[in-house]
Amino acid sequence: MVDKKLGGAGLRGQSAGETALCTVGKTGSGLTYRGYDMKDLAENAQFEEVAYLLLYGKLPTQTELDAYKARLKGMRALPAALKTVLEQIPASAHPMDVMRTGCSMLGNLETEATDFSDQLDHIDRMLATFPGIVNYWYNFSHNGIRVETDTEADSIAEQFLWTLHNKKPEALHVEVMHASLILYAEHEFNASTFAGRVCASTLSDIHSVVTGAIGTLRGPLHGGANEAAMDMIEQWKSADEAEAAMLGMLERKEKIMGFGHAVYRTSDPRNAVIKDWSKKLSEQVGDTHLYAVSERCEAVMWREKKLFCNADFFHASAYNFMGIPTKLFTPIFVCSRVSGWTAHAMEQRANNRIIRPSADYTGPEPQEFVSIENRS
Amino acid sequence: MVDKKLGGAGLRGQSAGETALCTVGKTGSGLTYRGYDMKDLAENAQFEEVAYLLLYGKLPTQTELDAYKARLKGMRALPAALKTVLEQIPASAHPMDVMRTGCSMLGNLETEATDFSDQLDHIDRMLATFPGIVNYWYNFSHNGIRVETDTEADSIAEQFLWTLHNKKPEALHVEVMHASLILYAEHEFNASTFAGRVCASTLSDIHSVVTGAIGTLRGPLHGGANEAAMDMIEQWKSADEAEAAMLGMLERKEKIMGFGHAVYRTSDPRNAVIKDWSKKLSEQVGDTHLYAVSERCEAVMWREKKLFCNADFFHASAYNFMGIPTKLFTPIFVCSRVSGWTAHAMEQRANNRIIRPSADYTGPEPQEFVSIENRS
Repeated sequence: MVDKKLGGAGLRGQSAGETALCTVGKTGSGLTYRGYDMKDLAENAQFEEVAYLLLYGKLPTQTELDAYKARLKGMRALPAALKTVLEQIPASAHPMDVMRTGCSMLGNLETEATDFSDQLDHIDRMLATFPGIVNYWYNFSHNGIRVETDTEADSIAEQFLWTLHNKKPEALHVEVMHASLILYAEHEFNASTFAGRVCASTLSDIHSVVTGAIGTLRGPLHGGANEAAMDMIEQWKSADEAEAAMLGMLERKEKIMGFGHAVYRTSDPRNAVIKDWSKKLSEQVGDTHLYAVSERCEAVMWREKKLFCNADFFHASAYNFMGIPTKLFTPIFVCSRVSGWTAHAMEQRANNRIIRPSADYTGPEPQEFVSIENRS
Repeated sequence: MVDKKLGGAGLRGQSAGETALCTVGKTGSGLTYRGYDMKDLAENAQFEEVAYLLLYGKLPTQTELDAYKARLKGMRALPAALKTVLEQIPASAHPMDVMRTGCSMLGNLETEATDFSDQLDHIDRMLATFPGIVNYWYNFSHNGIRVETDTEADSIAEQFLWTLHNKKPEALHVEVMHASLILYAEHEFNASTFAGRVCASTLSDIHSVVTGAIGTLRGPLHGGANEAAMDMIEQWKSADEAEAAMLGMLERKEKIMGFGHAVYRTSDPRNAVIKDWSKKLSEQVGDTHLYAVSERCEAVMWREKKLFCNADFFHASAYNFMGIPTKLFTPIFVCSRVSGWTAHAMEQRANNRIIRPSADYTGPEPQEFVSIENRS
């Protein structure tokens, strides 16, 4: 077999397979899920409609949506053994490590059949339990509360806020969460999805696929940009202070998170949606400066570097306005993207070949073994 | 950016990066670790020498090896919270799910620094604890015993057998385990290693890398072939019975595990090593037919299909002769390959670009959003 050398590290711009789920950065459309413009979905649909679209192949009718939401609602209770595991994890843990462990543990208690005949049951179970998993741990480790995850929430969006704050959230916040979950649901062969597809290509189980994807999303070059953006903007008390500080950071060539993208070249189509919501929330909570700081950051980065806000930047302020602790930003990404990851796993399984590339060898030539007494 | 179309699915024969760790299937050498022939290592070295070679870049002197083994020995005790987690996992769980969860949980309790300055501490800790993790769970869930993992075992090879059987193993078995662990230690860009490198490329932590790799190895197209081989050969009471049954399987075009390889074309260099050990063990335990059955399977597959035994096939009988339950075969692979996975993670980190390929879109053209009341 002849190895073909690919130009560029990281497989950038190289096709590694096929998908019918998503286009990213095609002219005129920005981001589409199964051909639908993400903006239309974020403005007009609930997250469950988008999950249904990705997993079941079409937008649901009202009857189908009602049935799907009722199904997910019935799957929210966490097994006792999983709660015991979550209670072993200290408050100091990385919340993405908690989600990775929670997903992995769920796979021990409810293991997928080897013929994948129940794959959608396990996928829907993950969608239904993930908000409760992270918030059960968060409330137990930080507040000493065993929160009830089997709530009366109407949707996954509401379920996240309800299990976090241990009470029914207000309607505006639920609406924002629907949009946010839709924005993060799917994004073609990004690193975590691709890692999940490599895992799926060995015909491993769905919990392994998602556990691996969570661990990959955890990396600061992938998920976590919204947390880094929050850490940055919350230091500043006014737009002018932000501008001065940013110019200093740019001069010192410090990395500024939440701007630019590996695939998009001129703008991230998700930014306009979440920016609008951040503005509305800012007005609702009587914010005095965080939205203004965020807007100024956007203007400075465009003026100085021609870099645009990606999906993460205005998510920081939006989540903050809803009282979500910064460390839980990336776990929300997980609660959403699990829909895309698992849709890709099903797609990989339906037309599978094990993903096993080659490598260019850069190591030493063949060398003689030296017995241990003759080594130096 | 222009997408380049690659020939062949699964990136087969396509280079996806560089490595100095390993060559697979190069003419004349078979399998090399940092330029050393795997056979020389399996015949003359302990597993810790190979792990040291992969992780620290050279074969250790006797002084270095002694210090390294002492270091690993001091890292075997499991944290109480991890034991509690393992005790929550039922006997019916898939042992690879147990390892995936154990590794992930360890990352919650002992989290890698974000600058990776302590990466080798965490890697050595995984090497030291993995045998204890799977065997603590196995003995608790199957035998109701809380096995002591902080043993006096001299090596990882001895530690695996000691924690499994809860007593000091015999010397011959330890020798076989050293060779077995060396055979499985490293294998270039196989699927689990590649999944680990994709994870590492987001600059995620080492426990995420290994957790994802374990989940990927779990797939029946990757790890697990030795278990499938065992399930097959243990049905047969003689070589003649095996031959008749195999011919029937071939006629019915049933999949037979443990033969052929994605990269090797004429033989798997690891087979000769483990076959020799299987023969020695067969004689030691007074085996009446299992080795003969295995040899006949090899002869039939070569005669009928020109397919050779891969590393997994004679591992089945060898592990069985040492009293290792079939379901723990793939976890041994993990205890070994964690050395290769983590060496690759360090290599990826040292010269990183995020691994983010593109995909060929095969889905619907852009379509108009339809509001829910107008859907069918």
